[in-house]
Amino acid sequence: MKWKPNHQSHLTVREQIIDWIKTHIERGDWTVGTKLPTQRQLAAQFHVNRSTVQLAFDELRADGLIESKMGSGVFVANNSWNVLLNKSQPNWQHHIESSLHKPNYHTIQLINEYEQKEEVIRLGTGELAPELLPTRQIEQSLAQISLDSKAIGYSSPKGSEKLRGILCQHLKKRGIYTTPDNILIVSGALQALQLIAVGLLEEGSTILHEPPSYLNSVHPFQSAGMRIVSISRNHHLADNLRAHKRKRQSLFYCIPTLHNPTGYNWPAEEKKTLYNTCRELQIPIIEDDVYHELLFEKPAPAIKSWDTSGQVLYIGSISKTLSPGLRVGWVVAPSPVIERLADIKMQTDYGSSAFSQEIAAHWISSGLYEKHLIDLREQLKRRARFTEELLEQTFRNMATWKTSEGGFYIWLKFHQPVVNKALFLNLLHHNVLINPGYIYEPSDLQHIRLSYAYASLEDLKQGLNILRNLIQPGDREDNRF
Amino acid sequence: MKWKPNHQSHLTVREQIIDWIKTHIERGDWTVGTKLPTQRQLAAQFHVNRSTVQLAFDELRADGLIESKMGSGVFVANNSWNVLLNKSQPNWQHHIESSLHKPNYHTIQLINEYEQKEEVIRLGTGELAPELLPTRQIEQSLAQISLDSKAIGYSSPKGSEKLRGILCQHLKKRGIYTTPDNILIVSGALQALQLIAVGLLEEGSTILHEPPSYLNSVHPFQSAGMRIVSISRNHHLADNLRAHKRKRQSLFYCIPTLHNPTGYNWPAEEKKTLYNTCRELQIPIIEDDVYHELLFEKPAPAIKSWDTSGQVLYIGSISKTLSPGLRVGWVVAPSPVIERLADIKMQTDYGSSAFSQEIAAHWISSGLYEKHLIDLREQLKRRARFTEELLEQTFRNMATWKTSEGGFYIWLKFHQPVVNKALFLNLLHHNVLINPGYIYEPSDLQHIRLSYAYASLEDLKQGLNILRNLIQPGDREDNRF
Repeated sequence: MKWKPNHQSHLTVREQIIDWIKTHIERGDWTVGTKLPTQRQLAAQFHVNRSTVQLAFDELRADGLIESKMGSGVFVANNSWNVLLNKSQPNWQHHIESSLHKPNYHTIQLINEYEQKEEVIRLGTGELAPELLPTRQIEQSLAQISLDSKAIGYSSPKGSEKLRGILCQHLKKRGIYTTPDNILIVSGALQALQLIAVGLLEEGSTILHEPPSYLNSVHPFQSAGMRIVSISRNHHLADNLRAHKRKRQSLFYCIPTLHNPTGYNWPAEEKKTLYNTCRELQIPIIEDDVYHELLFEKPAPAIKSWDTSGQVLYIGSISKTLSPGLRVGWVVAPSPVIERLADIKMQTDYGSSAFSQEIAAHWISSGLYEKHLIDLREQLKRRARFTEELLEQTFRNMATWKTSEGGFYIWLKFHQPVVNKALFLNLLHHNVLINPGYIYEPSDLQHIRLSYAYASLEDLKQGLNILRNLIQPGDREDNRF
Repeated sequence: MKWKPNHQSHLTVREQIIDWIKTHIERGDWTVGTKLPTQRQLAAQFHVNRSTVQLAFDELRADGLIESKMGSGVFVANNSWNVLLNKSQPNWQHHIESSLHKPNYHTIQLINEYEQKEEVIRLGTGELAPELLPTRQIEQSLAQISLDSKAIGYSSPKGSEKLRGILCQHLKKRGIYTTPDNILIVSGALQALQLIAVGLLEEGSTILHEPPSYLNSVHPFQSAGMRIVSISRNHHLADNLRAHKRKRQSLFYCIPTLHNPTGYNWPAEEKKTLYNTCRELQIPIIEDDVYHELLFEKPAPAIKSWDTSGQVLYIGSISKTLSPGLRVGWVVAPSPVIERLADIKMQTDYGSSAFSQEIAAHWISSGLYEKHLIDLREQLKRRARFTEELLEQTFRNMATWKTSEGGFYIWLKFHQPVVNKALFLNLLHHNVLINPGYIYEPSDLQHIRLSYAYASLEDLKQGLNILRNLIQPGDREDNRF
């Protein structure tokens, strides 16, 4: 599908490449400041020698259309537009830099980018491997779905009534008794956080969370102008919360079951302390519970199951268990909160995909979902045990970790602070992608969030070996590198 | 599925209703300030006399659990929580009122709410009627979709590569030549506006638009702190734009083809003037082009088709043509813009439904979509002509309108300023829902956006009769009211 030079053309390959690049600039696809693909990438795309691309670049550079910036690549030059057409272009770079929303951290942008590449070994990806997704069964179930014309129109503000009814039943297994009117369907848990940020909190509010935290790797709250404050989860939790002087509204965010990134499970006692303290201090709690169905043993009750004060905003999802591509999650909360979040969701995207909601409703109500979970937990457990054995072989003297109780992650702790951006980039050069601890806690240079859910067993082995050899090049257990 | 009193219970029906309400309050589903359903609604749900519900309310009121507010309903009382359990609850109402995002206008909230009711005649709904959606064909096509395990994982930041490739081909028919890297898949056009608001504009930027405007009925820009300024589209457009002194960044938003709400089509000359003036003044343009495939005749070129300066952000969608439930739209823009919006989309909802994207790709690439459009335009045309005939019979002496050139809408203009909120509410009492002109232009009390796309022909006739009789009760052509 991608363009290639035509060898039958009366133009040379170099001339064709120059024209192709000029067209992108002229057409406004590549505005001033756009970074060009690398010579290597273009050579591969065009099926030509890199030197041919280099000659084309040289000519474009001489014409003032592109410019090189040391160490960061080749860009469409400032005056390219004048050169080409003597016309002016909007300065999109300026627009972007002065706009409201924070960009993702550079490391996270790189993670998003490299996750698209086939050849990369993904040691940190918080997602089920393609072979763990019930793709064929979903495909088969599509044929059984009968659509209602009303259901594929614009959604009702809270989402599909059918799905909300089914979720009421489903949530009883988690000890949560609620009504369809207290549920909002969202496009994944992250959207729920986004809606809460703009719909329930004033600017400058404080979000309390336990470090390290998933919230440092995404920033729905920070982009809405909220402050993030770490509260350590230890036996002083209640005192810590009380000591935190509240001049502004605040809210406690937590993942008490299979915490991301640590995999930690709060004992019931700790959860109760948190709930009681927050109730006393009138601090609402966001209970992010998207992993609980992946616990290898029976989970402790959800905080929401004790909630009689409308204090807990509970978030669930099937992204971690059935398919992230569905983009279906939910919030359980008091009516005024749900009405408000639904109103904002209507203003944001007019509701979630009706088809995804139909599929979710079918899977949960038919029992297909529960059956799939039983199998999935078995497979994840096997992967966890395999990975722990690899760690024992590879990192025994360099790091510590806990036996996984479920979910995707092992929070690998190195004795030395070796997990810095240089290591991350160095691994990328070796086509290995990790989730370094510093994206969850900026000062942390000792941890990696290892995921045994995504990479194949072979890739896990190879990736961990590469990691080990880059960290301790003098002490190789495997001589391939 | 909804709760009903049990007539075999040892408790009276009244006592059961009281317990049911208390449970909602105790469980925190209905926090302080929550508005209760009306007595009429509860009586219908419970299959009891309204007087039984009234007695239950009286008792709860006497206990201090609920309170009536004149003219606005019955609410969970401030001290309900103390009464019940002597505990404190978070004050969600305070949270909501002090938070960042604006609520929808009350009229629009009512529209969203009443659109869910079966018995309501919807004269303004900007959506295809269930019978115009190709529901059975979509259902059949589901069986033909073969899913790729990778495709149902988390999406790449810009959306399905397959769909973006197919859209490149599709957009050629609109005169737009672009690359997959210059396309971002979004969950409908409204999300595109939201992403542009937070991703490309600084706080306090100005959004220029032509009144009346769809932008007044949603507020992605206003909620992000932007100012909306009306620029009249007439032969002084260029002068008006130049006269608008720009201290801040600004951006021109328009729907040049089948404008919402007026149905107006900009002649090619006007579009060119806009494009050239905006280019000269370096004002980017958002071209919202979601209706063009519904034109009865061949559309004039899109502004984007002339764009050689990367000035135009082009928005397309299949919500108006195939199914709003899919939530699939797209933005075509220069690379830096697409990269930026994709980055924010990843932070917002991790991408759109993979299933919806698969269905869209299948429909567009197989030709099913084009075939469906031919039939759809015919049906819409028939509905338009039918409605215009009704208008001729009903409103000849009271209003004017133009013959529809396509899409959904007729912009009905009354001679007198009769379209106010009182009329809107009065019609609701008669189960007729309209989109009054004032939601598109606050000072406008003369217009209604009439949609011939949603209501059945019979409902259109009945609804228009009710409308006429409410506006001019003394001069009835139909004596049923």
